[in-house]
Amino acid sequence: MKVSELGEFGLIDLLAKIAPQGGPEHHMVVGIGDDAAAWQSDGSTVLATTDAMVEGVHFATGTSWWELGWKALVVNLSDIAAMGGVPGHALVNLSLPGNTEVDDVTQLYRGMAELANQQKVAVVGGNITSAPVVMITVTVIGRGLKEGLLRRSAAAPGDRIAVTGYLGSAAAGLKLSTGSLKVAPQAAAYLKKAHLQPQPRISEGQVLVKQEVRAAIDISDGLVADLGHVCAASKVGAIVRANAVPIHPQMRKAFGEAALKMALTGGEDYELLFTAGEQVIEKVKAALGADCPVTVIGETTGGTGVVLLGEDGKPYHIDGPGWDHFRKGG
Amino acid sequence: MKVSELGEFGLIDLLAKIAPQGGPEHHMVVGIGDDAAAWQSDGSTVLATTDAMVEGVHFATGTSWWELGWKALVVNLSDIAAMGGVPGHALVNLSLPGNTEVDDVTQLYRGMAELANQQKVAVVGGNITSAPVVMITVTVIGRGLKEGLLRRSAAAPGDRIAVTGYLGSAAAGLKLSTGSLKVAPQAAAYLKKAHLQPQPRISEGQVLVKQEVRAAIDISDGLVADLGHVCAASKVGAIVRANAVPIHPQMRKAFGEAALKMALTGGEDYELLFTAGEQVIEKVKAALGADCPVTVIGETTGGTGVVLLGEDGKPYHIDGPGWDHFRKGG
Repeated sequence: MKVSELGEFGLIDLLAKIAPQGGPEHHMVVGIGDDAAAWQSDGSTVLATTDAMVEGVHFATGTSWWELGWKALVVNLSDIAAMGGVPGHALVNLSLPGNTEVDDVTQLYRGMAELANQQKVAVVGGNITSAPVVMITVTVIGRGLKEGLLRRSAAAPGDRIAVTGYLGSAAAGLKLSTGSLKVAPQAAAYLKKAHLQPQPRISEGQVLVKQEVRAAIDISDGLVADLGHVCAASKVGAIVRANAVPIHPQMRKAFGEAALKMALTGGEDYELLFTAGEQVIEKVKAALGADCPVTVIGETTGGTGVVLLGEDGKPYHIDGPGWDHFRKGG
Repeated sequence: MKVSELGEFGLIDLLAKIAPQGGPEHHMVVGIGDDAAAWQSDGSTVLATTDAMVEGVHFATGTSWWELGWKALVVNLSDIAAMGGVPGHALVNLSLPGNTEVDDVTQLYRGMAELANQQKVAVVGGNITSAPVVMITVTVIGRGLKEGLLRRSAAAPGDRIAVTGYLGSAAAGLKLSTGSLKVAPQAAAYLKKAHLQPQPRISEGQVLVKQEVRAAIDISDGLVADLGHVCAASKVGAIVRANAVPIHPQMRKAFGEAALKMALTGGEDYELLFTAGEQVIEKVKAALGADCPVTVIGETTGGTGVVLLGEDGKPYHIDGPGWDHFRKGG
């Protein structure tokens, strides 16, 4: 069987059975299958996550190197945010064709450094190798708060499902940058920034943990796909009211009816999706304030899978839930 | 300027100036430029290192997947060994073409798992992505011993320079596997294993630290190149007596005169090179015993660079010191 037939998530399940996942001496708290791994070390919880950006897969030749550096780090910081943790140290593996311009690589590092400085992350090591395509693999090591961690597996039936910020903006920004679509300059600026320079919800993830949220994921593959990961890990189902999904006014104006599908399935928003009881969600809203909108979009159930309800209250169908690296729209 | 003109090490120096290398809150002990990064965390020292294997660069299409898995982990464990540390947790980033056979990927994981189990390393997370070529990036997180760390920068003029094991065997094994050279079956088996399944010197690195060695590196780029890294980091020079460099009897029999150049410049032996006073080296020899030969090959000096002396006591010239990812034979 080919990897493309099994798909990314089937392959992860298979390999997780082969990999030694640790004995008592490894003090594991969270292993393969969450946004980051976690283990105990001298009274604190270590968090570690790794992610790669590959030319031709995650970005096109000609993407700004500065933004590439930013994104290679943000995808990892977002995983630490989704655990409610504090990022600390990063290692960078750069694979480059020999004819890459040195100035481009320094721009990449400047983009990464901008975000690293903003989030107080030290870039402490790494490796450089030649390769036929550009590839950036970043590993971030951080720590969990003493109050606990956010996990994909901690949702319970009857929880409210909430998200931070607005969804689909990154996908809309990507569409704008590749297509010939014309939108108002202000909308274009907002959407392109959402695509090229997303913010990791680091401080927000920590607020969630402190307000006693325990179940979360970051929206990197798309709302429906990522909520599906929470449902699978927590053994719950989910109902999402499509018209409750938060869409930025600039995006609604620019894309009209097409905005909803991007909000449901577009990846790379790096917002947090979390579940909790109604009172906890109210406390989160109060703690986060106006800078970070929190929107309840549905509820978890005792069933399985994600059901979308349209405005008429009837199940709503979409073609594919989100991103699988080997089966697009899988 | 192109990356190939600047070279791997020039690029690392340049990027290290851009990357934020941490403030007081990062408790750095060793930053960019050693075998692994190190920082303090709640009274223990965290070690972290990352390394990648790229198809067509580090291995050819058709390499055994099992051995690829072993090697992707061993290059990182060897970096932990070169700090005198204890490996703990690994994260794996796999980049694969969609038409890769699932059975091949499981073989890769079995090879990695064999070494992970041997060295009590847990594979706790990672990431899988599609890519035009196979690429495996592994990050290993471990801890330093309370006695201290081995560093590239800790050599002092007048130290003895010593190495563990035998050198050049991996390069000879590579030559055997790609060429039509015929050698005795016993020699072929030893050399191929040295190339395909090298052992990380984890326990030996810990013995070095406990015996008060403080300067070391692992020989991954080749003896002369890696000793050059120690000289540069420690601001010392080095004299190496070529006829003292340990070459395995099987290799000398198979390659004769050609063995020496491979021992001096062939990479991927994953032996440890260290420097210390004569008494410390005697204690290390006694502690390691017959299982791991230790050979003194020269001395550090107050000068700069590596000088090789031939049997006649005159400087010995080689074409290139070792491996640079962008300038082969640099």
